[in-house]
Amino acid sequence: MNHPVELQVSDEEMHHRRNRLWKKARELELDAICLFNPTSIFYLTRFRYLVLERPVCLVMTPSRSVCLVPHLERRHVEQFAFGTEVVTYPEYPGLRHPMLYLGDLFQNLGMVDAKLGLDSPAPPEACGYRGPSVVEILPKASVISIKNLVPQLRMVKSPEEIALMRTSGHWSTLTHRCLQKHTAAGMYENEITLHANLEATMAMVHMYGERDVGFKGIVELCPNLGFRGQIGVHSGIPHSLTRNAVIRKGDVLITQVGANVGGYHTELERTMIVGQPSPKQEEHFNLMVECQDTVLSGIRPGVTCAEIDRISTSFYREHGLMDAWPSHIGHSIGLESHEPPYLDEGEEMELLPGMVFTVEPGMMFEGFAGFRHSDTVLVTDSGFEFLTVYPRDIESLII
Amino acid sequence: MNHPVELQVSDEEMHHRRNRLWKKARELELDAICLFNPTSIFYLTRFRYLVLERPVCLVMTPSRSVCLVPHLERRHVEQFAFGTEVVTYPEYPGLRHPMLYLGDLFQNLGMVDAKLGLDSPAPPEACGYRGPSVVEILPKASVISIKNLVPQLRMVKSPEEIALMRTSGHWSTLTHRCLQKHTAAGMYENEITLHANLEATMAMVHMYGERDVGFKGIVELCPNLGFRGQIGVHSGIPHSLTRNAVIRKGDVLITQVGANVGGYHTELERTMIVGQPSPKQEEHFNLMVECQDTVLSGIRPGVTCAEIDRISTSFYREHGLMDAWPSHIGHSIGLESHEPPYLDEGEEMELLPGMVFTVEPGMMFEGFAGFRHSDTVLVTDSGFEFLTVYPRDIESLII
Repeated sequence: MNHPVELQVSDEEMHHRRNRLWKKARELELDAICLFNPTSIFYLTRFRYLVLERPVCLVMTPSRSVCLVPHLERRHVEQFAFGTEVVTYPEYPGLRHPMLYLGDLFQNLGMVDAKLGLDSPAPPEACGYRGPSVVEILPKASVISIKNLVPQLRMVKSPEEIALMRTSGHWSTLTHRCLQKHTAAGMYENEITLHANLEATMAMVHMYGERDVGFKGIVELCPNLGFRGQIGVHSGIPHSLTRNAVIRKGDVLITQVGANVGGYHTELERTMIVGQPSPKQEEHFNLMVECQDTVLSGIRPGVTCAEIDRISTSFYREHGLMDAWPSHIGHSIGLESHEPPYLDEGEEMELLPGMVFTVEPGMMFEGFAGFRHSDTVLVTDSGFEFLTVYPRDIESLII
Repeated sequence: MNHPVELQVSDEEMHHRRNRLWKKARELELDAICLFNPTSIFYLTRFRYLVLERPVCLVMTPSRSVCLVPHLERRHVEQFAFGTEVVTYPEYPGLRHPMLYLGDLFQNLGMVDAKLGLDSPAPPEACGYRGPSVVEILPKASVISIKNLVPQLRMVKSPEEIALMRTSGHWSTLTHRCLQKHTAAGMYENEITLHANLEATMAMVHMYGERDVGFKGIVELCPNLGFRGQIGVHSGIPHSLTRNAVIRKGDVLITQVGANVGGYHTELERTMIVGQPSPKQEEHFNLMVECQDTVLSGIRPGVTCAEIDRISTSFYREHGLMDAWPSHIGHSIGLESHEPPYLDEGEEMELLPGMVFTVEPGMMFEGFAGFRHSDTVLVTDSGFEFLTVYPRDIESLII
């Protein structure tokens, strides 16, 4: 296994992923698999790209992996994609549609009448992209949907993935320390966020130095952090809106931090209070922590996601808090910041060792304030382990 | 018209958008319109949300606008959506699928057998969302695709939109000044970016102060900027990958800045050179500027997008630069950072006054360096006008 400082999973892990994929594909008697989802493509190749108007497609057979990309992505596939050939089209819209190049690729593979597994009927319609579906360009192929196949493979994290997420968790802790340190009454939300961002990012930058691994976009080696507008009475509105707010004495704040490490994320959120909490703030804060503790005590293999969600619902009911119920109380996390399964009363899947969830039962009181901690936890053989470590008690979170 | 400092378009503009929408919808004899695209929903309501696992749907009839959202978004619709009723479902996955609530909504509107225009057969499959399509829940409805309708309405910008984009252009200029000022040999890419970000953001924060308009997410009132890894030889790889690079004397750098103002974007990119340029660097830099000038001189109403792209292709050919051709040379921009129509040889649409394009013919020399400026320009009655204003000559861009 690579040391996590490699910031990517090993070739062995890539082989293992493809073997698992083909085990499932053979059960479905597939000749080839055609993937348009960028996260699935990254999972199976380590190639990342900006999703814009130009479609990208990964075609896999039992012996080959071929990625169709626009001309401008050719070098990235060559440099970064594991065991993958590259085929290009010049541009989109272009004089000839990219999907016709996909047809050529299947022709060259001798697979125009193959049994094909597709994660989507056509590429995502990003930035106004329009084009034919796969069945329109390959009318002789027989096609089945495998849209859940790769997401299901991703649900249980491998030891290498867990190592990367553990590293992400460490950086989330550091980032939150920076955020808390810079938070003060009188400052603008974005002002605090950027000072903390600079400090946390420089720590990551110095830690990892220059390297050949490519990070897509401008946000890597740069944690995400902030308040998302959850300041004062607006902390009582979940997924609140940034208002360029000034932090004031007496405000309840809900933070959010994370760090992308090799494509993997963790989530750490805390409720902080500016100045000495009022009795009402303290009461609700402590109820929220008690609820999170209660939910956490239920996390272990074999329990269903719905059962975990119902632990919190019972807590809300017993304490007369249903009016403050905002949402389900957690989600899986990994390559995506939200991924299935969800800790939701409608999700009957069982928790398995290696799954990673956020646990974040919130209490949102309209016109007063909101209270929520979020931690990322790994399901272990016997219970759970925190991937994000940060104080949860009120004394530690007073500004 | 609102002053652009309002950071959103006026109610009058919202009425005007809906009237244009219904003019088209009546031509198609539609009873109702059902939209899942978050940009289209923002365009017609001013309501923005984080796209996660929970679907959102805007249903419009000639007299009503109703938004179906998860419980946790209810307050945002009430606060921010123009002339729109709100209907909620508790959660996704939930005990009852959100799409069944959409069925209820159509039942309550008396429209289960309506003629429906859909921008997509079903909600986007974000974060593992899965569910039935609209025709599965409304089997008696007759359905047609209107996926191009709202994007087409958005192609020609209104005076209010242009005002917001002009403001975005001003902030792009300031942001690039900050980026250039902080760039120095020996510094990490992210270090420069964050120092510049802090300075530019604080200017925006002080300019606009606290306000009641909600900004979704943590990136508003915060410009986006950086190098995207386009540093040294990596400047020769378009859409390059961040490598946590250190800037060195002799490096060619390609920057990227923009600023979100009321949801609208501009794009400003410059090629900068660290230290005195080599003759070869200077030659290629000047060719790139000459190519951009040549393309710009062709921008006027009535010319097609393909014709504009062919101006650059002729230039590349005449100068023996086809090996350095990376991509089409521009895209429309507005609520999305890339939107149709594209300045591409496959796009036969004519330029119209009020369209806004980036003009960015790049030259990418593998193993050496890349050269590209990008400016955002407004098509006027007689030609074009820069929305991004920043020096383009080599002397001004030497670090």
